[in-house]
Amino acid sequence: MAKVDYIEDFQKWRSEFQYSIPVYIRFSETDMIGHMNNVSPFIYFEEARIKFLQSLGVFTGNVYEEGVPVVADLQCNYLKQSYFGETIDMYVKANNVGTTSIDFHYMAVNDKNEITLTGRGRLVFVDQESGKPVPLKEEIKRKLKNS
Amino acid sequence: MAKVDYIEDFQKWRSEFQYSIPVYIRFSETDMIGHMNNVSPFIYFEEARIKFLQSLGVFTGNVYEEGVPVVADLQCNYLKQSYFGETIDMYVKANNVGTTSIDFHYMAVNDKNEITLTGRGRLVFVDQESGKPVPLKEEIKRKLKNS
Amino acid sequence: MAKVDYIEDFQKWRSEFQYSIPVYIRFSETDMIGHMNNVSPFIYFEEARIKFLQSLGVFTGNVYEEGVPVVADLQCNYLKQSYFGETIDMYVKANNVGTTSIDFHYMAVNDKNEITLTGRGRLVFVDQESGKPVPLKEEIKRKLKNS
Amino acid sequence: MAKVDYIEDFQKWRSEFQYSIPVYIRFSETDMIGHMNNVSPFIYFEEARIKFLQSLGVFTGNVYEEGVPVVADLQCNYLKQSYFGETIDMYVKANNVGTTSIDFHYMAVNDKNEITLTGRGRLVFVDQESGKPVPLKEEIKRKLKNS
Repeated sequence: MAKVDYIEDFQKWRSEFQYSIPVYIRFSETDMIGHMNNVSPFIYFEEARIKFLQSLGVFTGNVYEEGVPVVADLQCNYLKQSYFGETIDMYVKANNVGTTSIDFHYMAVNDKNEITLTGRGRLVFVDQESGKPVPLKEEIKRKLKNS
Repeated sequence: MAKVDYIEDFQKWRSEFQYSIPVYIRFSETDMIGHMNNVSPFIYFEEARIKFLQSLGVFTGNVYEEGVPVVADLQCNYLKQSYFGETIDMYVKANNVGTTSIDFHYMAVNDKNEITLTGRGRLVFVDQESGKPVPLKEEIKRKLKNS
Repeated sequence: MAKVDYIEDFQKWRSEFQYSIPVYIRFSETDMIGHMNNVSPFIYFEEARIKFLQSLGVFTGNVYEEGVPVVADLQCNYLKQSYFGETIDMYVKANNVGTTSIDFHYMAVNDKNEITLTGRGRLVFVDQESGKPVPLKEEIKRKLKNS
Repeated sequence: MAKVDYIEDFQKWRSEFQYSIPVYIRFSETDMIGHMNNVSPFIYFEEARIKFLQSLGVFTGNVYEEGVPVVADLQCNYLKQSYFGETIDMYVKANNVGTTSIDFHYMAVNDKNEITLTGRGRLVFVDQESGKPVPLKEEIKRKLKNS
């Protein structure tokens, strides 16, 4: 398995994912030889993250209380090719929950049970007016940690 | 300046970029409040990288000799918001040239001379049949190192 | 029902569709109030068309015999809003099969059995060298007409 | 010149365009042989339309007064191939201004002065609550007709 700097113990890291959505890889997301292009995973990460937060019932869109979510960074490691017409399971977890930010981790698994993608990225919540970080509410932190 | 783990000395890192292309931020690449979405930088990175390699006259598309380029990883740090209608300068450099791969670094600068994005990602060249890495030709390595 | 100039009798037109694929509407394909954006249908049309042709076993990728498929025109009518997280049935049929081109028609239906989108577009097959239209093989025409 | 059903007299139609923006065709918008894909024109149409309306100073975003703009239909005819790295001039005009809707027409011209794309599409303005069409203000109609 390729070394990925944000994963210490692959088995442990993998076992901590509980939430996933199926993602179908479209023709428009592949090149002429049918390989998934390298931009698509970031679209899939976003989709999984939003459905995950919806499933927890947090971030109800009250930007005045909760702040505006802003992506601080994103990264992706491409471990195996995926192809047009495949459906992958896109996993997401809150790997670390800070005072004003959440570090989400991502993992895609194909139908042979192979990990095709890993990723991570930090989401910060900021006040719409001042642009300053907004502390996460205790209830949100608790739900994310228990997810 | 935000700490970015792949940049040791920001001044030195910035000064080593020589090649850039202008990138206009489209309406379709922003959300309803006009912020650039978080997937777009990876499209801009790709565009800059391809134009950069074209400008050097390397990777002429001879995949039998040069191997098929495969993205191994990608990352982006979002330092400043960009907005619909802005044009940014998208810089790219070969930060490290290995035996079979190149580590490209990216930097976007807005018209106030602010760095809005930084990024990096490794490109590997593999044999189309075997999928094994193909060593970079000396001429290509030399051109990239002198760029 | 809105008047659409490429549909004479809506009931008849609708009844002639036999092939469809499910299409899930992603967050990245909607605006901030959750409406599907107006570019996405053309991605869905393409996806349905390619899966449809695959299902018939025609256009096996032999561009020397079959010509290169080129889109001559495309159009879409937006009848009902669709939203983030919805899955629609994307129908496609070969409405007319000519000597060198096919007129595909498209229809999207939501889970309330409402038609949300209609569309059409002509695909021409051209010789890779000369750019001239290539006549469709009889077998392909027959399969498309019986589909 | 290919026959396009929404254009009666090509010379006259072409001469009525006054507003255009340059559009650079990205690598991500082309296929492996460098042809622009068939979804991209609709992104370019949108970009040109928004910049055009901005240039006229209409539709200032006051959705309570002006209604929410909704795309009713869109179509595109592909007359000539465009390639990766090209810049085309994307023209737009208000071909017809109705009581509650505008019929925009589009034309792309390459650097050989060839028309590569033509298109059109109707934009309707609806009340955010009721979904009913909102009449266009006289000032907006006047500016569009004089553009």
